[in-house]
Amino acid sequence: MSVSPPILPPILHGGRLDLARAHFPQAPEPWIDLSTGVSPYPYPLPPLAPEVFTRLPDVAALVALERIAAVAYHAGPKAQVVAGAGTQAFIQCLPRLRPATRVAVLGHTYAEHAAVWRAAGAEVSRVETLEEIAAAEVGVIVNPNNPDGRLEPAARLADTARRMAAKGGLLIVDEAFADFLPAEASLALCAGEDGLVLLRSFGKAYGLPGVRLGFALCGAQIAERLRATLGPWSVSGPALAIGAAALADAPWLAARGVALAQDAARLDGLLAAAGFEIIGGASLFRLVRHAAADRWFAHLARRGILTRRFGERPDRLRFGLPAAPAAWERLERALESGRNGL
Amino acid sequence: MSVSPPILPPILHGGRLDLARAHFPQAPEPWIDLSTGVSPYPYPLPPLAPEVFTRLPDVAALVALERIAAVAYHAGPKAQVVAGAGTQAFIQCLPRLRPATRVAVLGHTYAEHAAVWRAAGAEVSRVETLEEIAAAEVGVIVNPNNPDGRLEPAARLADTARRMAAKGGLLIVDEAFADFLPAEASLALCAGEDGLVLLRSFGKAYGLPGVRLGFALCGAQIAERLRATLGPWSVSGPALAIGAAALADAPWLAARGVALAQDAARLDGLLAAAGFEIIGGASLFRLVRHAAADRWFAHLARRGILTRRFGERPDRLRFGLPAAPAAWERLERALESGRNGL
Repeated sequence: MSVSPPILPPILHGGRLDLARAHFPQAPEPWIDLSTGVSPYPYPLPPLAPEVFTRLPDVAALVALERIAAVAYHAGPKAQVVAGAGTQAFIQCLPRLRPATRVAVLGHTYAEHAAVWRAAGAEVSRVETLEEIAAAEVGVIVNPNNPDGRLEPAARLADTARRMAAKGGLLIVDEAFADFLPAEASLALCAGEDGLVLLRSFGKAYGLPGVRLGFALCGAQIAERLRATLGPWSVSGPALAIGAAALADAPWLAARGVALAQDAARLDGLLAAAGFEIIGGASLFRLVRHAAADRWFAHLARRGILTRRFGERPDRLRFGLPAAPAAWERLERALESGRNGL
Repeated sequence: MSVSPPILPPILHGGRLDLARAHFPQAPEPWIDLSTGVSPYPYPLPPLAPEVFTRLPDVAALVALERIAAVAYHAGPKAQVVAGAGTQAFIQCLPRLRPATRVAVLGHTYAEHAAVWRAAGAEVSRVETLEEIAAAEVGVIVNPNNPDGRLEPAARLADTARRMAAKGGLLIVDEAFADFLPAEASLALCAGEDGLVLLRSFGKAYGLPGVRLGFALCGAQIAERLRATLGPWSVSGPALAIGAAALADAPWLAARGVALAQDAARLDGLLAAAGFEIIGGASLFRLVRHAAADRWFAHLARRGILTRRFGERPDRLRFGLPAAPAAWERLERALESGRNGL
């Protein structure tokens, strides 16, 4: 294989098959997108009544969905659950809702948190300890973390939130990848306390990110401001219907958790055999290190397999989980063929 | 019929069948919702590929949709077209994007514009002339207006926008009900000029408000700030697919315009025969006056027909267009039975 990799597409978010196709036009179709942390097991779409599309999103359906979500996420008795069009919609809102001049983000993580606070004029620093988070005006923790899977115990985060609340601070805990952990790993039971906003993603665990659905769990005051900022009808009719069916189906999610754990073990085996050092991960992705990570990225891309690079950590790649048997086979072959040449 | 009407549900937005059912539990099902200005002819849903749900909304699909919308709306060469999850999403954004202390709204109109500017701390005044709009920091005009259908000539609005731009002002023109007017009635050709933001609604004309899709047509600077405020993936996968199919189908829309004009004429006949004075309207609704409007509201609601009241104009009702023949018949019977008793 060629020694100098072709020019790589810019790193923005995962899922940019359009850029991948433009940069690797010879790659076989269909592309296998392992660049996002989305479950390969989409929740089976329920039949959607025509009214889901032909009427304004129903207020009663929204209230029902938020109640179902409160049960599914084991929200504490004081928690308000606010539905929005994806976690990202809440991330966009938070700096306006609670202005701050100094914001601390824990570790190398999902870049949108820092980006929106910076855009709002805040000074954002990356910190490495909960002590530093507790000292900030606003703290952001993705838990488990994306991309390395670092998991802070819920009790420690609850304590951090309490200390921040006592001085008027706010802790944002983004649990986008918490769905397959035991309920005790989530801060949901503490949601509703002052100074804590918990974010939950629907699309990742249920394999339906195109639907745009997410939730904020928080106290009454923040909930009211979030609803006012989002405005009426911010969640679509299809999202209300699909979310309500999926979140009420706990057995389906539990079964998917078993399958995903098997898939992750299988992926670990393939990656280790190819010479990658597995340095972290959560149920929906694995983070690996390799001195030739950029060349691996290009090697896989030429074979129609898109992984996730990180601009500031060029020795790392993140792998999502393949879906179909054919995708697993193509990944296995691509890893085998690269093992000797890279 | 009873002389004293029952307690009426509060007036929030149209479409609140949940409140109507709670206040009129004896009303026959299914309710006929004439309380919104949504077309009774939904665009036939195209087949939706699974990826529309199972992948993050595609950036290339978003760009394609915005190009299709630019053609459909006859956007001027300088216009940027920004897609969002419904016009309301843009209405929520605008006060943050362009802060103002004094905002003028033309006439009795869709209440959300004034509400979001007030919530952002602006002093909002209702004015009656374009001169007063031109003198404001930010002006808002719904054109054609909801609920009375008042239509300002595009040339006059373009002139107003230019005068406002010259002194750093901003004119917001909400064309939520402009789809069935000749292209010359729209300001789309002027979009892209400084100081003008044009809003277009997808759901109303295409009968699919549950999808959540709308557009802002504006200059490059405002477009950039709108995109930054909305964040990535603000339009769902289904909305991208459905919107692209519908907006590319000009013949379908033209045929619906003919049908809607016939429907509106039929509705006018029924309303006039029942003793209502028709004082305005647009292609998707009619505004009527009657001394006993509140009793008419209750009379129709007891028969499972929801119309739109206006808190500050208790002598007025707005009627949307019935969809199925059975709905037309029920409306006709309800109007006939009320004519003598009210």
